Amino acid sequence: MKFATRHNGNRDGQLLVVSRDLQISVAIPHIAPTLQRLLDDWDTLSPAAEAVYAELNDGVRPDAFPVDVNTLLAPLPRAYAWIDGSAYINHIVLVRKARGAEPPPTLRTEPLIYQGGSDTFLAPRAPIVVADLAWGADFESEIAIITGDVPQQTTAERAAAHVRLLMLCNDVSLRNLIPNELQKGFGFFVSKPSSAFSPFAVTPDELGDVWRDGRVHLPLNTWLNGELFGDPDAGSEMFFSFFDLMAFVTKTRALSAGTILGSGTVSNADVARGSSCLAEKRMLEVIATGKATTPFLQYGDTVKIEMKYKGHSIFGAIEQTVNPLSASGERIGSSLSRSQKEQL
Amino acid sequence: MKFATRHNGNRDGQLLVVSRDLQISVAIPHIAPTLQRLLDDWDTLSPAAEAVYAELNDGVRPDAFPVDVNTLLAPLPRAYAWIDGSAYINHIVLVRKARGAEPPPTLRTEPLIYQGGSDTFLAPRAPIVVADLAWGADFESEIAIITGDVPQQTTAERAAAHVRLLMLCNDVSLRNLIPNELQKGFGFFVSKPSSAFSPFAVTPDELGDVWRDGRVHLPLNTWLNGELFGDPDAGSEMFFSFFDLMAFVTKTRALSAGTILGSGTVSNADVARGSSCLAEKRMLEVIATGKATTPFLQYGDTVKIEMKYKGHSIFGAIEQTVNPLSASGERIGSSLSRSQKEQL
Repeated sequence: MKFATRHNGNRDGQLLVVSRDLQISVAIPHIAPTLQRLLDDWDTLSPAAEAVYAELNDGVRPDAFPVDVNTLLAPLPRAYAWIDGSAYINHIVLVRKARGAEPPPTLRTEPLIYQGGSDTFLAPRAPIVVADLAWGADFESEIAIITGDVPQQTTAERAAAHVRLLMLCNDVSLRNLIPNELQKGFGFFVSKPSSAFSPFAVTPDELGDVWRDGRVHLPLNTWLNGELFGDPDAGSEMFFSFFDLMAFVTKTRALSAGTILGSGTVSNADVARGSSCLAEKRMLEVIATGKATTPFLQYGDTVKIEMKYKGHSIFGAIEQTVNPLSASGERIGSSLSRSQKEQL
Repeated sequence: MKFATRHNGNRDGQLLVVSRDLQISVAIPHIAPTLQRLLDDWDTLSPAAEAVYAELNDGVRPDAFPVDVNTLLAPLPRAYAWIDGSAYINHIVLVRKARGAEPPPTLRTEPLIYQGGSDTFLAPRAPIVVADLAWGADFESEIAIITGDVPQQTTAERAAAHVRLLMLCNDVSLRNLIPNELQKGFGFFVSKPSSAFSPFAVTPDELGDVWRDGRVHLPLNTWLNGELFGDPDAGSEMFFSFFDLMAFVTKTRALSAGTILGSGTVSNADVARGSSCLAEKRMLEVIATGKATTPFLQYGDTVKIEMKYKGHSIFGAIEQTVNPLSASGERIGSSLSRSQKEQL
């Protein structure tokens, strides 16, 4: 199944079932008005959603309408948990080097994860609003899963059954705020504003055999200002799989339905594959030439993140432009940009 | 106004308006079925809730029924954001000393805060389930506020208008997991399982003049196994007020309605006032005698947290017992204990 959430004036938006080719969609208020509602009672509600999905793909839903990505919010516009891992060792090593920090001694024995802000996520076409460019804004292209209820102390071997959906993420980071914040010892907060997610969230079966062992074995493409910035494989160097991450984060507590769990920045050791964030590229420049020349994000920059399978976009594309904070202190939240609202 | 959330089989429970004396209550499904719904649209919905509250206190609601604290969940059984500060300098200094860490250089210029797990909160009478006593389970008695929407870069001077509700919190901590986790640099996760909240959340006006300058100027009482463990004043030594915390956490992003913001463990420098967590008491023992003699929480231990004003409980009491994880890996989440479910 494939899902999206349409802006309808409510904070949680309206759940849409989307056809396999991402072209048409249908609302299912009689089954679940929102994606969170579907996730809350997945076992009971998802069979009816499956039936709608089959009819949609067969072209026999008279209530189907074309998908307009500009009207979509994040699949979960807000969530009860956003836990971001950092499962690609190459990324950890490079980024820590970039800020003069050592990799943790548990680099290969315990995944790095942090609890992120989940109260507002950016729509796939919402701007990245940065009040101060001196904060060093960066993108981070990631894979994310949405879980069902996961009992405490679930093993990696038993984790697969609790993965409900997959999507892409842009985990926006403010690099120049990170060193001071992490030095305080309590993790990220102001250095991690709202993340953006892909227009579509899909069930694991939509990925066929490229979803295996808790990894997505496909390149993740990132474009900066229209140029390919990186296409590292998301599977091969994911040191801790999503199943490993799930086992780790359930050590002392259960996870609830609708928990979003991120892979961390997708990264390959082969520099020819490029990067999924600016910080890595800057560190590679420092290593090669002694100096980082690629700047952090500037106003007007565009970032596009997408993953394709057999030539087709799986999750749709995250496409964002970097904007200043308006003088009014506008709340951006998960809402659409002003121009998008005006279109509706 | 005073509110509670009653267990009704749904994850978000049923919102109750509660009389000032905490004795009777009424559901208001026609206004807001859940507390999150009320917070999502506070300006529109709260006047009708105010009218119900007035009638309830006047004894003219025929649909009123007695409050049964054993049927109550946390006021927000799950939330989109739980941000916990550490605003009492005495606590930071003692607890860092306890784990051999230095206070951060920004101790008095920037509040310490962390993003906590908000997908399940413990009911005020739910057990503290600890799978392994070697983790060093501890309580932390705190004040918490629930905010409305708070724009990015809100100043402390403008923060007061965004405080919707206050309540008490037990921020359960697994002390022996903290040093390793913080050493990894990404903050707390497995060392902070679900927090518990008081039965009742109240609007700031219910506190009269003891709510001022973004602080609650009353002692916060904690009992361990029936004996008073501490009654430090929550106002006088709160170095960063809730308004300061709100200004800090909105530096790079807005807050959404229903965000819970905690004060951190309430602590006074005067040792005669006792402590609001075991870690502080243990550190004081080390300082006095060279050795901590008070153990961390054991199975069967009871913790009670309450705040009184003119002899009356403001928020009701958090009363929890420490239990092992059942062999079945039972999901505890925000749900009631098994015995409580059997009573319903």
